[in-house]
Amino acid sequence: MLPSIDALIALALEEDLGRGDVTSEVIFERGAQASGRIIAKEPLVVAGTEVAREVFLRVDARTRCDLVVADGQRLQPGEVVAQVAGSARSLLSAERTALNFLQRLSGIATLTRRFADSVAGTRAIVCDTRKTAPGWRLLDKRAVLAGGGANHRADLASGVLIKDNHIAACGSVKAAVERARARAPHGLRIEVEVTSIDQIDEALSAGAEVVLLDNMTPERVRACVAKIAGRAVIEVSGGITLDTIRAFAEAGPDRISVGALTHSARSLDVSLEVE
Amino acid sequence: MLPSIDALIALALEEDLGRGDVTSEVIFERGAQASGRIIAKEPLVVAGTEVAREVFLRVDARTRCDLVVADGQRLQPGEVVAQVAGSARSLLSAERTALNFLQRLSGIATLTRRFADSVAGTRAIVCDTRKTAPGWRLLDKRAVLAGGGANHRADLASGVLIKDNHIAACGSVKAAVERARARAPHGLRIEVEVTSIDQIDEALSAGAEVVLLDNMTPERVRACVAKIAGRAVIEVSGGITLDTIRAFAEAGPDRISVGALTHSARSLDVSLEVE
Amino acid sequence: MLPSIDALIALALEEDLGRGDVTSEVIFERGAQASGRIIAKEPLVVAGTEVAREVFLRVDARTRCDLVVADGQRLQPGEVVAQVAGSARSLLSAERTALNFLQRLSGIATLTRRFADSVAGTRAIVCDTRKTAPGWRLLDKRAVLAGGGANHRADLASGVLIKDNHIAACGSVKAAVERARARAPHGLRIEVEVTSIDQIDEALSAGAEVVLLDNMTPERVRACVAKIAGRAVIEVSGGITLDTIRAFAEAGPDRISVGALTHSARSLDVSLEVE
Amino acid sequence: MLPSIDALIALALEEDLGRGDVTSEVIFERGAQASGRIIAKEPLVVAGTEVAREVFLRVDARTRCDLVVADGQRLQPGEVVAQVAGSARSLLSAERTALNFLQRLSGIATLTRRFADSVAGTRAIVCDTRKTAPGWRLLDKRAVLAGGGANHRADLASGVLIKDNHIAACGSVKAAVERARARAPHGLRIEVEVTSIDQIDEALSAGAEVVLLDNMTPERVRACVAKIAGRAVIEVSGGITLDTIRAFAEAGPDRISVGALTHSARSLDVSLEVE
Amino acid sequence: MLPSIDALIALALEEDLGRGDVTSEVIFERGAQASGRIIAKEPLVVAGTEVAREVFLRVDARTRCDLVVADGQRLQPGEVVAQVAGSARSLLSAERTALNFLQRLSGIATLTRRFADSVAGTRAIVCDTRKTAPGWRLLDKRAVLAGGGANHRADLASGVLIKDNHIAACGSVKAAVERARARAPHGLRIEVEVTSIDQIDEALSAGAEVVLLDNMTPERVRACVAKIAGRAVIEVSGGITLDTIRAFAEAGPDRISVGALTHSARSLDVSLEVE
Amino acid sequence: MLPSIDALIALALEEDLGRGDVTSEVIFERGAQASGRIIAKEPLVVAGTEVAREVFLRVDARTRCDLVVADGQRLQPGEVVAQVAGSARSLLSAERTALNFLQRLSGIATLTRRFADSVAGTRAIVCDTRKTAPGWRLLDKRAVLAGGGANHRADLASGVLIKDNHIAACGSVKAAVERARARAPHGLRIEVEVTSIDQIDEALSAGAEVVLLDNMTPERVRACVAKIAGRAVIEVSGGITLDTIRAFAEAGPDRISVGALTHSARSLDVSLEVE
Repeated sequence: MLPSIDALIALALEEDLGRGDVTSEVIFERGAQASGRIIAKEPLVVAGTEVAREVFLRVDARTRCDLVVADGQRLQPGEVVAQVAGSARSLLSAERTALNFLQRLSGIATLTRRFADSVAGTRAIVCDTRKTAPGWRLLDKRAVLAGGGANHRADLASGVLIKDNHIAACGSVKAAVERARARAPHGLRIEVEVTSIDQIDEALSAGAEVVLLDNMTPERVRACVAKIAGRAVIEVSGGITLDTIRAFAEAGPDRISVGALTHSARSLDVSLEVE
Repeated sequence: MLPSIDALIALALEEDLGRGDVTSEVIFERGAQASGRIIAKEPLVVAGTEVAREVFLRVDARTRCDLVVADGQRLQPGEVVAQVAGSARSLLSAERTALNFLQRLSGIATLTRRFADSVAGTRAIVCDTRKTAPGWRLLDKRAVLAGGGANHRADLASGVLIKDNHIAACGSVKAAVERARARAPHGLRIEVEVTSIDQIDEALSAGAEVVLLDNMTPERVRACVAKIAGRAVIEVSGGITLDTIRAFAEAGPDRISVGALTHSARSLDVSLEVE
Repeated sequence: MLPSIDALIALALEEDLGRGDVTSEVIFERGAQASGRIIAKEPLVVAGTEVAREVFLRVDARTRCDLVVADGQRLQPGEVVAQVAGSARSLLSAERTALNFLQRLSGIATLTRRFADSVAGTRAIVCDTRKTAPGWRLLDKRAVLAGGGANHRADLASGVLIKDNHIAACGSVKAAVERARARAPHGLRIEVEVTSIDQIDEALSAGAEVVLLDNMTPERVRACVAKIAGRAVIEVSGGITLDTIRAFAEAGPDRISVGALTHSARSLDVSLEVE
Repeated sequence: MLPSIDALIALALEEDLGRGDVTSEVIFERGAQASGRIIAKEPLVVAGTEVAREVFLRVDARTRCDLVVADGQRLQPGEVVAQVAGSARSLLSAERTALNFLQRLSGIATLTRRFADSVAGTRAIVCDTRKTAPGWRLLDKRAVLAGGGANHRADLASGVLIKDNHIAACGSVKAAVERARARAPHGLRIEVEVTSIDQIDEALSAGAEVVLLDNMTPERVRACVAKIAGRAVIEVSGGITLDTIRAFAEAGPDRISVGALTHSARSLDVSLEVE
Repeated sequence: MLPSIDALIALALEEDLGRGDVTSEVIFERGAQASGRIIAKEPLVVAGTEVAREVFLRVDARTRCDLVVADGQRLQPGEVVAQVAGSARSLLSAERTALNFLQRLSGIATLTRRFADSVAGTRAIVCDTRKTAPGWRLLDKRAVLAGGGANHRADLASGVLIKDNHIAACGSVKAAVERARARAPHGLRIEVEVTSIDQIDEALSAGAEVVLLDNMTPERVRACVAKIAGRAVIEVSGGITLDTIRAFAEAGPDRISVGALTHSARSLDVSLEVE
Repeated sequence: MLPSIDALIALALEEDLGRGDVTSEVIFERGAQASGRIIAKEPLVVAGTEVAREVFLRVDARTRCDLVVADGQRLQPGEVVAQVAGSARSLLSAERTALNFLQRLSGIATLTRRFADSVAGTRAIVCDTRKTAPGWRLLDKRAVLAGGGANHRADLASGVLIKDNHIAACGSVKAAVERARARAPHGLRIEVEVTSIDQIDEALSAGAEVVLLDNMTPERVRACVAKIAGRAVIEVSGGITLDTIRAFAEAGPDRISVGALTHSARSLDVSLEVE
């Protein structure tokens, strides 16, 4: 586990059972054992399995948690995610936190899967944004991968994305792109947001390698794609839904970024059934 | 800020700008100043305002962030949440993290408001569950309060809730409730889940003070309410939606707990407009 | 280990051997092995055994530490708590921190045992307070359990206890209790402190479920118990000592809370004898 | 605040109010203000004042906390330690944690004062040990200073103290002392425990600069002091109480170390009186 | 301060003064004040000024520390970096840690300046590597900027750099580059290491955007530059020194990366002169 | 691992692979295995081996890392430090951080070895200072031991060192030494810096046990050594290099402290060769 994931798990355990689990402690005798299965209760693409296992082990290192599936697998209702066994107190105390991770991350993977399936056969790839739950960046992005999406930049250091505020500060698209190209690490492409088809030549001649078309209609995207004509990678964004994504994908962009993948996926139903 | 909120904010800042914000650093000159307004872009009940302000201040203690509204207020599109001013780099670097907090928490508050409004005029109060985003327990629960809901237990130490697994371990509802009553801290009520109306007398005579009716129809809830006849607090739960909650509320329970408030609220649109 | 206990152990190790153990490092050769026994040097009820073992393992994961007893057992002088074996440097470096945990927690358990034994045969149960050593809440409370006491609320979220300052803010016992009952999570009972027998009916009719009788004589407690007549749980507190607790217990309350259990227990003598 | 004290305060706040303070939140309106005085309720030497103030400020940076006394001052019942003012919720939420620090640390300072006064007029100075509450080393030792005691080594790196286990590993006092002298940092004296008067010449000729006389009678201490004759600093330890310390001090040692100062001081009564 | 810098400062303060500063505490009276100037003792390019100030403030928030220069300025011996004033104890306790930051970071900036000056007039830009002191990544890289260098990728997520091990795993340069291009975030360029001029066309046709020429002579670099002919960014690396860098720069690459900037710069002499 | 070393490793991993290792993730298939050897590429005294192993294990607990040598051993180019095997992704992701630790610490050990060898045959011992990389104190000092040097005080609590600022505050060497002797823990010697031979008698008669001769020529050191005549330990410091240390050592001091050991050692070449 990377340190930031360790830290999030620590926060999660502390907030739920930092003062103990009064119900389990008063009900179960100290030595009582139990076992159970974590089961999908609705169709889903699973994600977060390793974090869930880590939660059980952090609560009690003697708990056994065997993962039956790996992140990215599609499950039908009733299919088993993992089998757990150990102290009854430990299993029940860890249950909610482990499930909360699984349910949220499987929600993201499953929603991503639906978006990704919607663009099948086009050149477009669905990708995430930085609109992740604070503290969950890496987990959210891995869930997107599990769902068949791609990752956009991981953080503010791993991509240059010039938006309107940046352009305004520099005076023009050209000035902004040139300044970025001169100063940014050489392993990063320069991506710039354009708001009209007229800015495209300016951006490309200044050295932009990725063009972001934000809040355009599929028709305008199509026109921009034609204008760019392979001279840059093309990303589309802006309130794209399952209903509209196909039209955007058919307009020809390389990437369609969807904030909803990580900020508005609903949790899916996964439960622990104790035997 | 409480230590756990400090820790979550630290995780959030580290994951997004721990290696710097390469775009802002290459575009804005060191001394460049900016100001802007955080604005609701759709109708919402706002939550997370103080956390958002803290994010701006943690990125740069010299940033000014004046909150215009308080958590719990209803806002229309275009209404201002806060005004910010300071270094252009600092504002832009903090923007996404601050908005991610605001959008998720306002989503929870707004969804809660809709559920709460749906039960107006009944005795039922909408409350949350422990199905919060790991690491976010306190924030999620405060957003529920902002939306007009009530809080269920804060963690595993602040409530006794006996479910089927616990009952199975003790052999009967009666044995489980009695054991819990004998051992639990005296400031906690004993809540027990009953799966049929036949268990109610057993639960009450053993000392249960709260009865949880899980996954019942409104009709069965009504029958149980009549049976309990004021001898215990009644909580209803189990996949209740905006479409069904009114029927449940009219069946007479005291509390309706809804996991979706915190695990499936979509983020709402809030943005920073730089002037 | 829960995160907060991990954090306390980390603080403890850092403060004592964060810069190394100069004596052990200069005296023992790197490969030198040793073994020993942790022994009670005076009669005691042991507590903290698992934390002590964790200390040895955190200093050196290759150390072997076998617990011979479990928390809550009574030991006579010379009886063995645990056996340890491993690198001489590691054992000696961990010794003081491990013993400091054991000695303080066994002190709490033992003192609790004496209080609990003093009320044998009455309905009263001895319980702790929030007067624990900052940073040690969970450990202190578990030591109280090991000594045969019960736990009062774990923290400020797991119990409602209305004291004079709260009553003053609301204007009356009645107003305070009613406000708390309306707003508090439904899994919590409302406990209210009463300073005279005259307030009892007001408190009960407003919905108080636990009455705290603070700083009363046993006689006054007896009168209040009669007045309450089973309508609420009764807790007594206020400077109660081993000399006076029996008289209070015989007056009929349900709980007697004693701050001294955790804030004034003396450490008991436990030592590591290297063979 | 040093990082380790920050960390302990964070643990303390998290454990008590990490999930909120349900009573204060339901009773006090958000804007309600209050003020009060922290008052000694029994005679004491105060310690921990700055930590207590920090607790109030960490809960709410807008709280005002003015210290009226400094660590080390003697207070009579009714004398004021500090004045506090701010949000009623914030004051009441911080109260218990702040007092828990003050009460434990004032207990240590006061007990130290009694020991120190007992040796007045002799050359002996009372000092502490490493038998502090894990996590509290620096605070406990500062409270000893506040009570007029001196500090022994701060941790395992700031003093060489050769005990019987170390001597056994080396074969003789002479070998142990010589090895330590050759290898230890040159800013540290070599202290060695001797169990009989016969070992003194061996220790001194090997280069010991401090001799620890453990578990001897005052008479034997006197004989050792005569034998050492100013050639080394002399420390006495081993179960010394307020009843026996004077006899030890009059036997002529330089230091008397007392574990009870930090491991067995009872908490003293300090309270917050809200006006 | 970003969280990771906060954490490093906390480690640094804890390790040096976590148990107090015994010399300052015994020598200076509690209220004693002092002031002083931090002065360059040899020619240098300064870096780390804000971290140094933070160290003084973290030790004592009442200390005043006014920075006279900004990171990146060249200073001659005797020139002032900052002025400090406050408690004598606080200044002396913070001194060494603050200077240790300043001296190491100014060493990096100064060495970078020398390398950068050596390539003046060529198209080459000197940049850093990931060979930074663990825990210091962001600080080390900012010191490189202060010295006139550029930053290479910030971490393993902010750049794709395919080396021999990666190529071996894929079977060919072509396969490796194509796989990376297909899977990597679209904001990242694909950089690939080539070991002979023959691999260049393969790399470029597969989509490589940056070519790393490792451990070549200036002559071979020149040949590769000609071969690439502007079709990719060219980086050179491999044991380049102040003696050899000019020859490499004149061979025509875009970037010359030098691990020594951060892993082998000597600390420069900066001291605090108390007045 | 001690907590502070754990914390530094966590910072190091977070800063380099906290957002993942994009190259390894896109290139290597999830299950791909690899093995390799960590090899010295130039002559060195190795240090940091256990930290390097811990880095591999923290990235992936299933990685195998067998240390072939122990800290302090001299290695020739091509000699193996450790063998590693496991997931290809895990090995490559951990590589740079593990090597960064090894290279810096081996640099310190090797430079120390050279200084130590330079004084062979004299009574002088080479020792370190507090001029370590912030966050690395314990590691840096252990590397000095590995290189055959000795440690000076570990932190500000484990030694009393009175410098000119302290003397000025007290008015005289005599006053400063006496005050320190009266107040400092009795396990610490009093060390005082003297700037002229005339201060020696004053320092010794006041009780100084160690005399620091700072920034003197070897000739002046020799005169001071004669003057002190065995009455105190003698330390020499001040810009001593490999060229000058022999002359200082022959002047007769006990310790020569060299800041460069830890602040200016260059990293040595160690690499991971994947098979």
